[in-house]
Amino acid sequence: MTALPPRRRGRPARTEAGAGPGARERILEAARAEFAARGYDKASIRGIAKAAGVDPALVHHYFGTKEQVFGAAIEVSFEPAMNVPDVLLAGTDEVGERLARTFFGIWENPATRAQLVAVLRSALTNDVAAAVFRGFVLRRLLERVAGELNVPDPKFRAELAASQMVGVAMLRYVVKVEPLATADIEDIIALVAPTLQRYLTEQ
Amino acid sequence: MTALPPRRRGRPARTEAGAGPGARERILEAARAEFAARGYDKASIRGIAKAAGVDPALVHHYFGTKEQVFGAAIEVSFEPAMNVPDVLLAGTDEVGERLARTFFGIWENPATRAQLVAVLRSALTNDVAAAVFRGFVLRRLLERVAGELNVPDPKFRAELAASQMVGVAMLRYVVKVEPLATADIEDIIALVAPTLQRYLTEQ
Repeated sequence: MTALPPRRRGRPARTEAGAGPGARERILEAARAEFAARGYDKASIRGIAKAAGVDPALVHHYFGTKEQVFGAAIEVSFEPAMNVPDVLLAGTDEVGERLARTFFGIWENPATRAQLVAVLRSALTNDVAAAVFRGFVLRRLLERVAGELNVPDPKFRAELAASQMVGVAMLRYVVKVEPLATADIEDIIALVAPTLQRYLTEQ
Repeated sequence: MTALPPRRRGRPARTEAGAGPGARERILEAARAEFAARGYDKASIRGIAKAAGVDPALVHHYFGTKEQVFGAAIEVSFEPAMNVPDVLLAGTDEVGERLARTFFGIWENPATRAQLVAVLRSALTNDVAAAVFRGFVLRRLLERVAGELNVPDPKFRAELAASQMVGVAMLRYVVKVEPLATADIEDIIALVAPTLQRYLTEQ
């Protein structure tokens, strides 16, 4: 992947196959679909390029290595989660319930869910993908959440809250254990919200 | 895998390569290592047989299909977890803390941890492995736990407790987010135990 022919480096030529308006977005969409369908290990720049109808060199040009393409795909997949820290800005009264509603709202949407399952699966099975996921989730999400908390060791608390939400997501949406997989989401929120509230506010 | 030559069916011949005392245990050990190293998708009966120093037909003879070999490997990996239900038999006073100590005691042991990580990774990335895992964990572990609970919807409650423990395990031992990955296990137990206590006992 690093041994590209020299002519493919630099700005894409006007004649580069598939270059043109919307190419970047098409590649990103194809990357998300490829990582979702095949996981990090099996996904390839070539496959992503083919699905986007562009030359593999154009994928490299816009995003760099496979690791960097994965990073960009994660970023898009987590966009809906990016307003999670805003939940905390509204104060700590019932922050557990608001956080649970925001988190499970994202997961209950089948389109968003498919992308998140793909990211989680890749992060859990490939060390490079795990490092990208860690860097992104830590830097962009958990640190912002922790910055709003007024508890001892706020990053640790933010991670414990994340662990409860990720655990439910794994068993409900990925492994699909019953009755959790088909339980009313309100029943889950009713029990999980006080857990999050305690982690995020208890002194 | 199902098209074995007829001579390989039935009891293994005395001349079957690798047959003999301890062959079953060697195969099981090799299967656990193979699933741990390669995951369910990439693991093969042939690879397991080679590592155990036996003929692939002997693996089929003792365990059946790859799915069944995986089931047997899960069973051995979860043996230490099988006394988790006993934690509940001692009553519900501080059951949250006792359960957390039992669960994290198993995970803090590097040998047991490697096997559990392997099982989880396989279950999260392969639907057949997920079904085996679900069947085993549901039938053997969570139903026994639920049977000891005196709460509304005990299976749901047992799964919520499991989700909190699995979530911490994923972020601490698999994805390794900091500070959770290197936090003192006592600090984790102190915050997680009341969560488990509430899920398992609150009316």
